[in-house]
Amino acid sequence: MSDRSARRGRDARRTAREKSGAVSKLFITRNVPLLELASLEALEMVEANADLILEEIGIEFRDDEEALALLKGAGADVKGTRVHFPKGLCKSLLATAPAEYTQHARNPARSVQIGGNHTVFAPVYGPPFVRDLDNGRRYGTIEDFRNFVKLAYVAPAMHHSGGTVCEPVDLPVNKRHFDMLYAHMKYSDKPFMGSVTHPMRAQDSVNMCEILFGKEFVDQNAVMTSLINANSPMVFDGTMLGALKVYARANQACIVSPFILAGAMSPVTALGTLAQVQAEVLAGGALTQLVRPGAPLIYGAFVSAISMQSGAPTFGTPEPTLVISAAASLARRLNLPFRSGGSLCASKVADAQAAYESANTLNATVLSGVNFALHAAGWLEGGLSSGYEKFVMDCDQLAMMQRLSEGYDLSDNGQALDAIREVGPGSHYLGCAHTQANFETAFIRSNLADNNSYEQWEAEGAQDMPMRANTLWKQWLNDYEAPPIDPGIDEALNAYMDERKASFPDSNV
Amino acid sequence: MSDRSARRGRDARRTAREKSGAVSKLFITRNVPLLELASLEALEMVEANADLILEEIGIEFRDDEEALALLKGAGADVKGTRVHFPKGLCKSLLATAPAEYTQHARNPARSVQIGGNHTVFAPVYGPPFVRDLDNGRRYGTIEDFRNFVKLAYVAPAMHHSGGTVCEPVDLPVNKRHFDMLYAHMKYSDKPFMGSVTHPMRAQDSVNMCEILFGKEFVDQNAVMTSLINANSPMVFDGTMLGALKVYARANQACIVSPFILAGAMSPVTALGTLAQVQAEVLAGGALTQLVRPGAPLIYGAFVSAISMQSGAPTFGTPEPTLVISAAASLARRLNLPFRSGGSLCASKVADAQAAYESANTLNATVLSGVNFALHAAGWLEGGLSSGYEKFVMDCDQLAMMQRLSEGYDLSDNGQALDAIREVGPGSHYLGCAHTQANFETAFIRSNLADNNSYEQWEAEGAQDMPMRANTLWKQWLNDYEAPPIDPGIDEALNAYMDERKASFPDSNV
Repeated sequence: MSDRSARRGRDARRTAREKSGAVSKLFITRNVPLLELASLEALEMVEANADLILEEIGIEFRDDEEALALLKGAGADVKGTRVHFPKGLCKSLLATAPAEYTQHARNPARSVQIGGNHTVFAPVYGPPFVRDLDNGRRYGTIEDFRNFVKLAYVAPAMHHSGGTVCEPVDLPVNKRHFDMLYAHMKYSDKPFMGSVTHPMRAQDSVNMCEILFGKEFVDQNAVMTSLINANSPMVFDGTMLGALKVYARANQACIVSPFILAGAMSPVTALGTLAQVQAEVLAGGALTQLVRPGAPLIYGAFVSAISMQSGAPTFGTPEPTLVISAAASLARRLNLPFRSGGSLCASKVADAQAAYESANTLNATVLSGVNFALHAAGWLEGGLSSGYEKFVMDCDQLAMMQRLSEGYDLSDNGQALDAIREVGPGSHYLGCAHTQANFETAFIRSNLADNNSYEQWEAEGAQDMPMRANTLWKQWLNDYEAPPIDPGIDEALNAYMDERKASFPDSNV
Repeated sequence: MSDRSARRGRDARRTAREKSGAVSKLFITRNVPLLELASLEALEMVEANADLILEEIGIEFRDDEEALALLKGAGADVKGTRVHFPKGLCKSLLATAPAEYTQHARNPARSVQIGGNHTVFAPVYGPPFVRDLDNGRRYGTIEDFRNFVKLAYVAPAMHHSGGTVCEPVDLPVNKRHFDMLYAHMKYSDKPFMGSVTHPMRAQDSVNMCEILFGKEFVDQNAVMTSLINANSPMVFDGTMLGALKVYARANQACIVSPFILAGAMSPVTALGTLAQVQAEVLAGGALTQLVRPGAPLIYGAFVSAISMQSGAPTFGTPEPTLVISAAASLARRLNLPFRSGGSLCASKVADAQAAYESANTLNATVLSGVNFALHAAGWLEGGLSSGYEKFVMDCDQLAMMQRLSEGYDLSDNGQALDAIREVGPGSHYLGCAHTQANFETAFIRSNLADNNSYEQWEAEGAQDMPMRANTLWKQWLNDYEAPPIDPGIDEALNAYMDERKASFPDSNV
């Protein structure tokens, strides 16, 4: 194939992609009401219990004298590393956090709005393993990492490039953040997350963003949304506090997020879990505002449960759904954006278990009005594995949720009375004018569902969904074209990384 | 094995089943708010448009002079088979239909409440094929039919025995209703549905129920809930009208249910589909109340869409979810129980497509407050196939939904403050008193999800969910014990069937 015909092919594909709305759906703006499962009585009960936890039991802030000093200065009662908060203190400190914010992408057309009635989908975060049908399960590499960045870039309903889409285990632990961050910057122009595994790595993330966006722009605008996990129950450790301070000081968004497997890190009941989550977020969130009032903050809650029989994590069950929905309400009552949910599952493979569990979680996520949905695609095996097939299968579902959130068309065309008059009793709508006029947009079209006849499906090899997904992700990677990046910026990013990498030895801690 | 040890084994299993709550969860009574996606403006728009359809366009009532006469007598404008309804007529006729009713089971402990804030799950209805992992896809037989009745009987979260759980294609079309009905009566003691494929078969269903429940009881109580499909758009045919009249006259419940694949039987838009559904249900429902005021009536809406590319039915997509949620609101505004949803999918096999689509539909079903959820388990391939593995997989999800509907525990135990105090920061809840006290009931336990470590899962054969489901349905059939039935009634049922079967020749129409 000549260069020219290859380019023509690419152009045609790009046109097709743009026509399919790839760039037009930047994030979800819901046009349907929220699912709020918890009553006002339940929410007020949780808030009172969280106040009690903060005041009576207190929260541990470990290995961070600066954090303790800031909290003490604000009126908290600090005894060693235990911080007790007088009633109402945290909430009043949180008043400076914005109810919603724009996270800027290097391509301004890709910037996302986080909070309010918006939902932003971001890929799976954190798995050390990857899985695909051809090679099974194996440790992730930087090549896998780049592949997932590319898939998230191509996926029309994926709004965000995410963070650790898989661990690039082939790179040294103390330097892989450079290559991960660079992959998001270079191979995508969607917004992304910064490193949190060490305060210095958070600072590297800020520094690289200053190269990409400009120093002043970064100081005045959120260009990263990063994940600060609490060590539940009721502990923040020095690593996370250090990263939190770096990001808050740089005016970058922190998700303060208890990581909860109920029964292990929280009580086995929904209300007990919620009170603890609320207390942890209030405490950690307050610190962001002490570091820099107005720094963007997301109320986070990663919530699932464990099997009481084996202790193993479970996903997609009803108890986390109850927690997600109520926590979303609690975050709204604090005027904070909310992070939770995703497409979570315990299944090792992209089978029916994975899909039931993921769909249950995703329905709860979207209907409850989660604003930032991490792990929205690719999550397998309780987060131990990033699945290639699972990634594109989940993306198909994200598109469904985007459509659902658009709600009802109340226009004359939506009411379709003319169609009903035209067709009348006993006929059909297959060829009527209204159907023809709405042909392209009437129903969302799945990339992966097989709706053909049994006979046709069998003739085409009786493929199940993962087999079709295997074809699709390869096609997406094949069709992928890198978004242009300013060569000077690219060079500066590489120079920064080279210099920093050379300045300290490799290490795997 | 001796008879005695076999009995001991059965007793132990029965005890285990009863302990697991098999008989205690008869139906869902929701303790969480409804998901109502449509605004009041949208609902009122649909209601006005439905009135317009009823008045201007009218509904066809074909091959049923009696129905036309009844409607004319009530004030409708009848021209040939076309019936136009003055504004408000249908709604005023529906005022006599009960907002909820008890459908009695022959075991009173299994009776279900249909309407209000209750949800009743019933199995898949209608497929000519069955599928299991061992034998693939084949025509259903009466043995398959009995197997699905037995599985529905054993499944703790299945509340209803259903109707045509699969077509017993090995029996003549004009006589198979006897054997189907008898299977529900004999092999289960959960409530069931009557035959609707011919008015005479509906009458046989009533007659057999009179043997089972007593003539007077049947006249005063609902013992069947049967499915009357409209021939959308805007037609009721003689067969369905005949069955409707038999059931309404006998004070038995009718689900008046447009069968909609939007784009074929209704407009491609949600509001257009809803207006037509509302008009069809109002018209057909009104007839039930003219036949016998007070006869139980369910507002039905089977809703999905078609692929605009191929015309094939699609399932689990967002557009039907919008219709289900709004139609549930419309039914509530008419004070009628509502039927829709289920665990619908287009997939040929019990793979991830089946699970995503089924879970999307089931979440919409339960969260929207559907009162009677037909097709809640076993549906494959757009309703062409009843799947053995799919059946038990769906049942596992039904149990999840039952738990979700229970909502939050606001008691002291639910709030778990003592647990949070006991554990404190930096510890874990695995062995604490509260966790131990709630060990049995804290989290629902899936029958089929694998939450074990990757290594253990691999060591156990790396089974996907359908493989585990294959083991489970066989175990359920193996453990099945028929509920006792009065031998005199059993004999009378058989005598009735024998006499009726001998009274006319076999036929396959």
